Amino acid sequence: MVRIYLGIGSNLKNRRENIRKALALLKDNKIRLRKLSRIIETDPVGGPKQGKFLNAVLEADTNLRPRKLLDTLKNIEKQLGRKKTVRFGPRTIDLDILLYDRAIINSKELIVPHPRMNERDFVLRPLREIAPNIVIPNNKMKTVKKISRIQEIAGDLKKRGKTIGFVPTMGYLHEGHLALMRQAKKDCDVSIISIFVNPTQFGPHEDFKKYPRDLKRDEKLARLAGVDVIFYPSVKEMYPEQYLTYVNVEEITKGLCGASRLGHFKGVATIVSKLFNIVQPDIAYFGQKDAQQVKVIQQMTRDLNIPVKIKMMPIVRETDGLAMSSRNKYLSPQERDDAAVLSESLRKARQMIESGVSSSPAIIAHIKDLIKTKKNAKIDYVACVDFNTLKPVNKIHKNTLIALAVWVGKTRLIDNIIVK
Amino acid sequence: MVRIYLGIGSNLKNRRENIRKALALLKDNKIRLRKLSRIIETDPVGGPKQGKFLNAVLEADTNLRPRKLLDTLKNIEKQLGRKKTVRFGPRTIDLDILLYDRAIINSKELIVPHPRMNERDFVLRPLREIAPNIVIPNNKMKTVKKISRIQEIAGDLKKRGKTIGFVPTMGYLHEGHLALMRQAKKDCDVSIISIFVNPTQFGPHEDFKKYPRDLKRDEKLARLAGVDVIFYPSVKEMYPEQYLTYVNVEEITKGLCGASRLGHFKGVATIVSKLFNIVQPDIAYFGQKDAQQVKVIQQMTRDLNIPVKIKMMPIVRETDGLAMSSRNKYLSPQERDDAAVLSESLRKARQMIESGVSSSPAIIAHIKDLIKTKKNAKIDYVACVDFNTLKPVNKIHKNTLIALAVWVGKTRLIDNIIVK
Repeated sequence: MVRIYLGIGSNLKNRRENIRKALALLKDNKIRLRKLSRIIETDPVGGPKQGKFLNAVLEADTNLRPRKLLDTLKNIEKQLGRKKTVRFGPRTIDLDILLYDRAIINSKELIVPHPRMNERDFVLRPLREIAPNIVIPNNKMKTVKKISRIQEIAGDLKKRGKTIGFVPTMGYLHEGHLALMRQAKKDCDVSIISIFVNPTQFGPHEDFKKYPRDLKRDEKLARLAGVDVIFYPSVKEMYPEQYLTYVNVEEITKGLCGASRLGHFKGVATIVSKLFNIVQPDIAYFGQKDAQQVKVIQQMTRDLNIPVKIKMMPIVRETDGLAMSSRNKYLSPQERDDAAVLSESLRKARQMIESGVSSSPAIIAHIKDLIKTKKNAKIDYVACVDFNTLKPVNKIHKNTLIALAVWVGKTRLIDNIIVK
Repeated sequence: MVRIYLGIGSNLKNRRENIRKALALLKDNKIRLRKLSRIIETDPVGGPKQGKFLNAVLEADTNLRPRKLLDTLKNIEKQLGRKKTVRFGPRTIDLDILLYDRAIINSKELIVPHPRMNERDFVLRPLREIAPNIVIPNNKMKTVKKISRIQEIAGDLKKRGKTIGFVPTMGYLHEGHLALMRQAKKDCDVSIISIFVNPTQFGPHEDFKKYPRDLKRDEKLARLAGVDVIFYPSVKEMYPEQYLTYVNVEEITKGLCGASRLGHFKGVATIVSKLFNIVQPDIAYFGQKDAQQVKVIQQMTRDLNIPVKIKMMPIVRETDGLAMSSRNKYLSPQERDDAAVLSESLRKARQMIESGVSSSPAIIAHIKDLIKTKKNAKIDYVACVDFNTLKPVNKIHKNTLIALAVWVGKTRLIDNIIVK
């Protein structure tokens, strides 16, 4: 069974009765009705002078394939006396496929999601009423490579008073990224993501070259997450010849990942300040997995007075607890099994704290002991720090960040929890 | 004699004849007419239902003091049969003082510049026609101390589609600054300046503490230059506790002033990127006197993709050639005399180049020899560099920057020319 959303409209004869009959016929045709929105009256869009419509949105389940569903809807329209007249003309009944699961269909006969639903308040309003958390796949998503073009788009959106939600990524998207994108779409009028594997945040012996890249795959996932624009620049576009400017956040970049990845956060602060200037977002979204990165970016935007709000979203995990990461792809099956010890050790740490332990050294020792049971794992650091200052704390308190970085084989993984 | 601008209007009886008569009476009253704009017909502003106005703007010279001028205009209105009726009512003749030299008058009887002239197209259009370069003193200028307030103002201007011209300064304004402000007002809808003596661009043994400050004086000058908003933050507002972020431009900050003022350009790049984020200007204005600074800021805005255009304006000089600088105030009378050697030596260098000399070492030697004739002067550097890369050149070519820094007594002065 597949979840579908249908638009229902009528502006001829007994409109309410037409809708009632259409629902009955849908039921007869193997479509399981779930929720009907309130029926609202709206002005016709285009076409000749005609009466007002009654409109509603239906949530339903079905086994019909999209093409078969379309035929079914057309048959019902015919049965209820709809006649082909002029485009956008009056009709006894109008049945549209708005959404078919998360499918994106662009055939001659059928375009799903419905190509004009995003501009139609009389569709969006009832849809949000019955499915408040729905993400509408975006079949008009654009991929833009030029800075000048994206600045044009952003400037134009600003002038029209639209808000921009922004998710900077290095691509090879996973559920962690997608959660950020869905949140952006929920909070803001328009969502923009960037996909850019940023060379300046990789050390000379790190994995810049082998970092996984797959634009086609990313585009498909982003489209499903309702993304409006992907900014996908080349390295040369972002770092042209004679590039000389870097943004550096001091102090809080020295410990944790900053200690083993020299220059990493200078690269991060630089690229993110560039992206903020290019995309001009109202809100930017980052995952808690890179907790130190979130802090660095918060500090930078505050210090440089960049007019953007930073939102940190929870870590998204695999079923065994492993924090989602594009780098998980590097792991062999054995390493993948062993990698679960990272989140496992943090879960144990949380249990210890809940049962009254508050000594950082005790917590750290316990985490280290657990990790050491896996022979593929080599600890980079395990630390308890204040999440505001990123300075080590001796006693665990509210807002303590317990963070770790562990090499599993040749792959460096990180994870953390924040004590409530 | 003082230059004045008068607004003339009439919407009763023979309007054109009324204006002709008013001009004749002005002439009889010691007002020397210079230029009359075209007479345009406009709708009345406010008041009861009434006929359209004929309006014009007159440029004239007079010896009358403002109060006496006002009385004269009122007498002429009476002579031509103007009667007091309702506010904004119809009138045979209406004479307004728009501008009286560069005076700002806020008395009970008289406000100059005319308080509503900036909103009245039927005043501004004819005024610009006869005085295209005029700067209208701004008696509504605001001084704002809070970042949040200025971001609010800037955001609001952006939403209304207004352009912002921005002049960052350290205050103690001189004609060099004022030229930038007038240009900003000419190019953009709104001009904003900042006055902030930025501690991070001063070395530990430099003149941060004694740098001249005088807000009252600066406000007066800025008002006359038509400035709309002065941003005047405290050090704590710009660098709150736990401030950690710095913007650094590499390479081009190493030579020239960067060599003797360690960390100076890091401070400059940091504060300017902050100010750009706060003020969100379309165009920012800098003087050529700080040529290396202009280059650093151009490089930074390009590299960080800040959406602002940088405009460099020519050096403004005292009558003896000394480049204007707030630091000239430090000079004793003898030092002030000696300081003229800086621009004098550059003028000689230009003559040598025009007469065919193209060897940088020869030019530099000549400049140094001239400066050494003043015993108060101690050379920091004299250099010929390519103005794009700021790298030394052996042969002078197009776009060579000849720059120098010289201590005159305890004051470090800089000056430069760019070879065309």
